[in-house]
Amino acid sequence: MSDSAKTPVEFYFDFSSPYAYLSGLRIDEVARLYERQVAWKPVMLGVVFKTTGATPLLDQPLKGDYSRRDLLRTARLLGVDFAFPNQMPFAAIAPSRLFYWLEEQNPALAKSYAKAVFSTAFQEGVSVNSPEIAADVAAKLGVDREAALAACNDPAVKDKLRVANEQAIAAGICGAPFFVIDGEPFWGNDRLDHVERWLATGGW
Amino acid sequence: MSDSAKTPVEFYFDFSSPYAYLSGLRIDEVARLYERQVAWKPVMLGVVFKTTGATPLLDQPLKGDYSRRDLLRTARLLGVDFAFPNQMPFAAIAPSRLFYWLEEQNPALAKSYAKAVFSTAFQEGVSVNSPEIAADVAAKLGVDREAALAACNDPAVKDKLRVANEQAIAAGICGAPFFVIDGEPFWGNDRLDHVERWLATGGW
Repeated sequence: MSDSAKTPVEFYFDFSSPYAYLSGLRIDEVARLYERQVAWKPVMLGVVFKTTGATPLLDQPLKGDYSRRDLLRTARLLGVDFAFPNQMPFAAIAPSRLFYWLEEQNPALAKSYAKAVFSTAFQEGVSVNSPEIAADVAAKLGVDREAALAACNDPAVKDKLRVANEQAIAAGICGAPFFVIDGEPFWGNDRLDHVERWLATGGW
Repeated sequence: MSDSAKTPVEFYFDFSSPYAYLSGLRIDEVARLYERQVAWKPVMLGVVFKTTGATPLLDQPLKGDYSRRDLLRTARLLGVDFAFPNQMPFAAIAPSRLFYWLEEQNPALAKSYAKAVFSTAFQEGVSVNSPEIAADVAAKLGVDREAALAACNDPAVKDKLRVANEQAIAAGICGAPFFVIDGEPFWGNDRLDHVERWLATGGW
C-alpha cells in the first residue's frame, strides 16, 4: 500500500492532559516508522467527562497524588522535560479553537502550534487557558496576534471545536490521549506500545 | 544483598479486577527475575472507591465498552486465556477472606488459592462471589470445604480483610492492580514494564 493510501493515526487529546503531552512528543515518530501520518484532534475533555461522569484525574483523592508521581517518573524515564502548569487542569478552549482555525489555513502550522501549546503548558509550566496566552503562543510562530484573538471568538471557529467534540464522543473517545488506527481504539499514553505493535502488524 | 534481605513486591488487587488477573499471571515471574518474592494482598476495591469516588470501570459509559475491547486485545497479545465472569464486577469478599485465612496457615497454599480464584473467574467465567463458590475453589486444592465455609464467617478472619483494606487505603492504593516496590507505587497492569525496570535498576 502506498503511503498516501494509508489512513492517518487519529490522536485525540485535551491540551490540558499531561499524559497527552507525553504522547504528543512521540506519536508522530512512532507513526512515521510505519509510514503513517497523524491527525491531531484537540477536544475538550470536560465535555467528554459529562458523558462518562469522570472528574479530572489530578483532582481525585489518592489518584491525584499517585498520578503526579507517575507523571514525573514517566517523564524521567523518557528523558523529557516536564513541569506542572500553574493551573491544573486548565480550560483549553482557546488553544483548541486556534488549532482548528490554523488547520484550515495550514495543517503543518497547526501541528507546530499544538506542540508549542504543549511545551508552554508542560515545559514552561504556563496554563494556556485564555485567548491572550493562546494568541501569544501563535504569535511566536509568526501568526498575526490580533487575527488569532479574533478567531477565538469567531462563531465559525467555535463551531469547528464543537463539531470535533461531538465527533470524538460519537467515536467513543473516553479519555486522553486516545488513538484510533483504522477504527481500532487505544486509550492512554501507556498504550503507545500497543499502538506501535498494531501499526507494525496490522492487528492481532 | 541476599535474596532474603530484599523486601517483597507488594501486589494489591481485587479478585474482581480483570486487569489484576492479567498481572497475577506475570508478577511472580517478573519478580523472580530480580530475586524478589511477591506479597499478594487482595483488597475490596469497593472500599477504596468510597475514598476515591470512582465507580467500577466496566460500568462506566464509553470507558466500559473500551475496556472490554482492551482486555480481550491485551489477553490476545499476551497469549493468555480470558473470559468475562458471569457477573461483573462481583463482590469478592468471600475469596478475599479465605485468602487471608489460608495465608495464616500456609502462605504458598494461599497464593495457589488466589491463582485458582482468578482462573475460575477469568478463564472459566464464574464469578467467585459467594462463600459456596469460594469454598469450592478451595476444596479443589484439598482444603476442607466445611472449614472454609466456616472461615468466611469467622470474626477473626473478617477482621484480617478489614485491616488489609485499611492498610491499602493508608498506603495510597487507588486502584487495582497496584504494586509497591520499596515504597515506590505503580498502578495498573500497564505499569508492569516500569515495575520490571524499577526492579532491574533500583529506580531512576
